[in-house]
Amino acid sequence: MLDLSLGFKNKYISLYEQIRAKILSGKIKAGERLPSKRALAEELGVSVTTVWLAYEQLLAEGYICSRERSGYFAERINSHEISPRKQSAPQKNARKEEYLCDLVNGNTPAHMFPFSTWARLMRFVLSDCGEHLLERVPCGGDPELQQALSDYLYRSRGLDIDPRRIIIGAGSEQLYGVIIKLLGRDKIFAVENPSYGKISSAYALNGAKWVAVDVGERGVNVAQLLNSGAHAVHISPAHQFPTGVVTPVSVRLKIAEWANSVGGYVIEDDYDSEFRLSGKPLQNMFGLCPSRVIYMNTFSKSLAPSMRLGYMVLPPDLYERYINLFSSSANVVPLFEQKALAAMLNGGYFERHLSRLKNYYKGIRKALLEKLALLGEECEVTDSGSGLHIIVKFPNAKSDAQIKERAAERGVNLKCLSDYLIAPRQGLECCAVINYSGLTKEILERL
Amino acid sequence: MLDLSLGFKNKYISLYEQIRAKILSGKIKAGERLPSKRALAEELGVSVTTVWLAYEQLLAEGYICSRERSGYFAERINSHEISPRKQSAPQKNARKEEYLCDLVNGNTPAHMFPFSTWARLMRFVLSDCGEHLLERVPCGGDPELQQALSDYLYRSRGLDIDPRRIIIGAGSEQLYGVIIKLLGRDKIFAVENPSYGKISSAYALNGAKWVAVDVGERGVNVAQLLNSGAHAVHISPAHQFPTGVVTPVSVRLKIAEWANSVGGYVIEDDYDSEFRLSGKPLQNMFGLCPSRVIYMNTFSKSLAPSMRLGYMVLPPDLYERYINLFSSSANVVPLFEQKALAAMLNGGYFERHLSRLKNYYKGIRKALLEKLALLGEECEVTDSGSGLHIIVKFPNAKSDAQIKERAAERGVNLKCLSDYLIAPRQGLECCAVINYSGLTKEILERL
Repeated sequence: MLDLSLGFKNKYISLYEQIRAKILSGKIKAGERLPSKRALAEELGVSVTTVWLAYEQLLAEGYICSRERSGYFAERINSHEISPRKQSAPQKNARKEEYLCDLVNGNTPAHMFPFSTWARLMRFVLSDCGEHLLERVPCGGDPELQQALSDYLYRSRGLDIDPRRIIIGAGSEQLYGVIIKLLGRDKIFAVENPSYGKISSAYALNGAKWVAVDVGERGVNVAQLLNSGAHAVHISPAHQFPTGVVTPVSVRLKIAEWANSVGGYVIEDDYDSEFRLSGKPLQNMFGLCPSRVIYMNTFSKSLAPSMRLGYMVLPPDLYERYINLFSSSANVVPLFEQKALAAMLNGGYFERHLSRLKNYYKGIRKALLEKLALLGEECEVTDSGSGLHIIVKFPNAKSDAQIKERAAERGVNLKCLSDYLIAPRQGLECCAVINYSGLTKEILERL
Repeated sequence: MLDLSLGFKNKYISLYEQIRAKILSGKIKAGERLPSKRALAEELGVSVTTVWLAYEQLLAEGYICSRERSGYFAERINSHEISPRKQSAPQKNARKEEYLCDLVNGNTPAHMFPFSTWARLMRFVLSDCGEHLLERVPCGGDPELQQALSDYLYRSRGLDIDPRRIIIGAGSEQLYGVIIKLLGRDKIFAVENPSYGKISSAYALNGAKWVAVDVGERGVNVAQLLNSGAHAVHISPAHQFPTGVVTPVSVRLKIAEWANSVGGYVIEDDYDSEFRLSGKPLQNMFGLCPSRVIYMNTFSKSLAPSMRLGYMVLPPDLYERYINLFSSSANVVPLFEQKALAAMLNGGYFERHLSRLKNYYKGIRKALLEKLALLGEECEVTDSGSGLHIIVKFPNAKSDAQIKERAAERGVNLKCLSDYLIAPRQGLECCAVINYSGLTKEILERL
């Protein structure tokens, strides 16, 4: 009848696919009447239901139509557009080279993460919250985590923040995207030069304009900022990456003054301020000028990069805009991780972990500085006592390329200040950026 | 000396704060010499270390400077910019009204979620993966989940997809943002009219232009699409929301032809295609024209909206662009949820859950249709056998407002087709959209 056979698949699917192929290839012509269900079932030795299911599927997809009391007919279909299914050729994923020592992409060593505590808290959340974990999370985040972060910011920084204005996000890049939506894509964002390339590329990827402003020894160049036409400036005053500069309060105040005068905003990216290894963290821009500063931070450095958890604190006017834009959206971070982090903060586990981590890094930094001291006058170390990287100048090096080559010969992956330039700039040559967040004493000894 | 007193706080912090306040208020003038550490310590009855810590903090933040062998001096600081810290006035969060029966925002009833299985899988992942859960997830997602999804799409849809081209995202809105970055913000995106408002607003929020194309009884109006100047069209051919229209294959082929001719893309948003209650899910646009279709789906309907887990399948050229743009970014979904979902798919738990859920909804739909039948000729039901909503026309109603008012009087939250218009359009009046995904028999009985 239709020259069909049924293989090992679900019979009705096999039948459906064969008839579909015949219609598409024109072997069953448009308008041609299909056999009745009973007749086809008999021919194929299958149940009428099998044929019925196949016909229903073809009907639903529009390959055939049914006319009352006359049966099923093939539809007119232009099939020349259909490409054959085939597996795409394998493509290579970007692979990183393996180094003995990576001073670029350092992640906190796994053994420093309080995994057993974290796992215990996750089990606790699972049994404690149960099916509540399935509830939709409000746009800003889980109120319990917002409260825990507000308490933590008060304890650790003396900041007194309405928890609702703390917006939970899936890491900093996702939060940058939200900021751009809040401030508007027509605005100009000033970005520090040099800086972590992901910041300017996040602005570009999200369709916002950005301009580079130089970072000097006292932070961002305020004169350049004043002339930039920018509406917002993205800075890390506590410890700039990569220069390591700590912005003094006099410059911070000038930046705040600028923001007030243009009605703009300061995006204070406090990515590693927990790691000020002596004294307490510096007072935030946010504390100086709370109505003009978006404070943001993540747990990538302090917990684990896989955590994808960050937050930002919005000034009141932006918080209102945020609610207007996003109140119908759910928060992107699973409730489970939010509850676990809240438990970690509320139970004091996070601060205990942080102080253990700071001690660990103090030791690493000391050993690193001792190692560098062996190089004698070949290098000059700049260390602001903050964060997880230092700048090492090699005054006798011929070029940045030479520094990196020599490092690579010893199995060390390294970048220089110039690698983080987002716009051309002179005078930053021969300075290596040593990110020691992934370093261990074992690796140091092998160098 | 300086008229300072130390309270209950950390002594050095209290000291630091008081000196800072005096510098900012001008009580300690720019250039004024501060007491020596020893002298101040004696006056306050604290240790020299306490004063030293406070001075170090002030020094680090730039409030004071130190000159060798002469001591510490206050810096010149413009303090009029500093706003006092205060708690912002409480702001109201958007609140939803409470209805007896919500036919707009329905979420899968909690008792239908296989929570004990999910919790068991999470515990399993926690012990099985251990510290591997801290590893950074490649931009596209965890390869194990990508493979599990590829297998699932093969089993359930007959799609044969390179797992690397399956991109994991935190729900559909986040994926829409990625698509816009891939295709470019300068492109025009055609969006179905009427449709779920979040789609067009996601394009607008991400700075992309969109145009509305009407949805008729056979899906999107292809003539309008041809004249729209669009580069991409966002459709749900399996079951359009809200019209419930299933796009027949002849129209699908025309859309594929359009995409081929303009070098554009079809964004196939398959948001509820698992819920085709009879037969298997319809063949995808993706299967018809894999090089021009971005296939996307989420687990919001099939698992839980709080899950924030979705995926999209990219055609090979867009996959390459994706790797170029995002290879240095980590995936936004925590590895933990990805592993748990992979285990759920690989263990067959997801499909078992889905079949249970479909059975449940069959019962709900039957009861709903019976209830509607009691209204007699007052209403006409359109039911395409797909998804989790139906369209009910009230030919005698005076207006959409009247339909909604009457429903509200009975405690029912309802929207009409016209509420989902994203551009003005006539002829869709008096059609209620009944989303029964949150309905239970108990609620139905009480109506």
